[in-house]
Amino acid sequence: MSLTMYQASIPSFLRMLGNLSAILDKAAAHAEAKKIDPSIFVNGRLTPDMFPLSRQVQIATDMVKGCAARLAGIEVPSYADNEATFAELQARIAKTQAFLESVSAAQIDGSEERPITVKFGSRELNFLGQAYLFDFVIPNFHFHLTTTYSILRHQGVEIGKIDYTGNY
Amino acid sequence: MSLTMYQASIPSFLRMLGNLSAILDKAAAHAEAKKIDPSIFVNGRLTPDMFPLSRQVQIATDMVKGCAARLAGIEVPSYADNEATFAELQARIAKTQAFLESVSAAQIDGSEERPITVKFGSRELNFLGQAYLFDFVIPNFHFHLTTTYSILRHQGVEIGKIDYTGNY
Repeated sequence: MSLTMYQASIPSFLRMLGNLSAILDKAAAHAEAKKIDPSIFVNGRLTPDMFPLSRQVQIATDMVKGCAARLAGIEVPSYADNEATFAELQARIAKTQAFLESVSAAQIDGSEERPITVKFGSRELNFLGQAYLFDFVIPNFHFHLTTTYSILRHQGVEIGKIDYTGNY
Repeated sequence: MSLTMYQASIPSFLRMLGNLSAILDKAAAHAEAKKIDPSIFVNGRLTPDMFPLSRQVQIATDMVKGCAARLAGIEVPSYADNEATFAELQARIAKTQAFLESVSAAQIDGSEERPITVKFGSRELNFLGQAYLFDFVIPNFHFHLTTTYSILRHQGVEIGKIDYTGNY
């Protein structure tokens, strides 16, 4: 069976979102066990000029909902970006998972050369589907997932790389 | 043109290794400009029980040389893992890039269902080629690249996410 755009995207996105959800659960449990205000973790940053954890999770989920929608040629779901608690971040992850699950392989397969435009304020990036997935979505998704992990790790939450990858 | 195992691996690995090399160059230049001993960066860690930068770069490069070799069904090149300076880390990255460039699309394509075994001490992980690439190599590769970035960012090197992704 040869590789498809769907297989290269949605199943691993879902897998990594599941790992992210489990990491946030461990952080919430750690906060409760140590009587730490959970907002310290949710607002935690690696440096003052990097985004806080909540924004890292927002961008990571944006990357994959945007990818699923753009490769499928459907509208990108819009979220309010106002999550401020672990429960709200978990709800955002669940909503993203449900959206990814709603997109079928038939919608995404064959999108290798689909023209994709991504807008950020006044900037506009143009890709074909395959480069969009491999050069933009996957690096950005993992960047924000790993930074979420690092913020928590740096703040003493007991997690390890196996929580990130799910295997090693 | 439909997606292949080669396209899903080697070109993005080479691209990210180029970005990593540029990030380490910026860190070396920062050390020189600020009269900081570069070994402080090379040995820098996000927390005492996480690997130092040198090991992060070693594992990131291990991930992709292992992937190229295993998907192609050839021997994984063995490196001494003794890099202790930016110049030595750059040499390792260059050696990895040259190895990735030496593996052809014809060797890697069709490896979706190739059985892959990865050994770590007494542990053994078994995958088929496609799951090995997407569930193991890509998450681990980006995890160690982003952690390298975060160590330098945390130590005040002036880099941004565009240095990581190369586009946004």
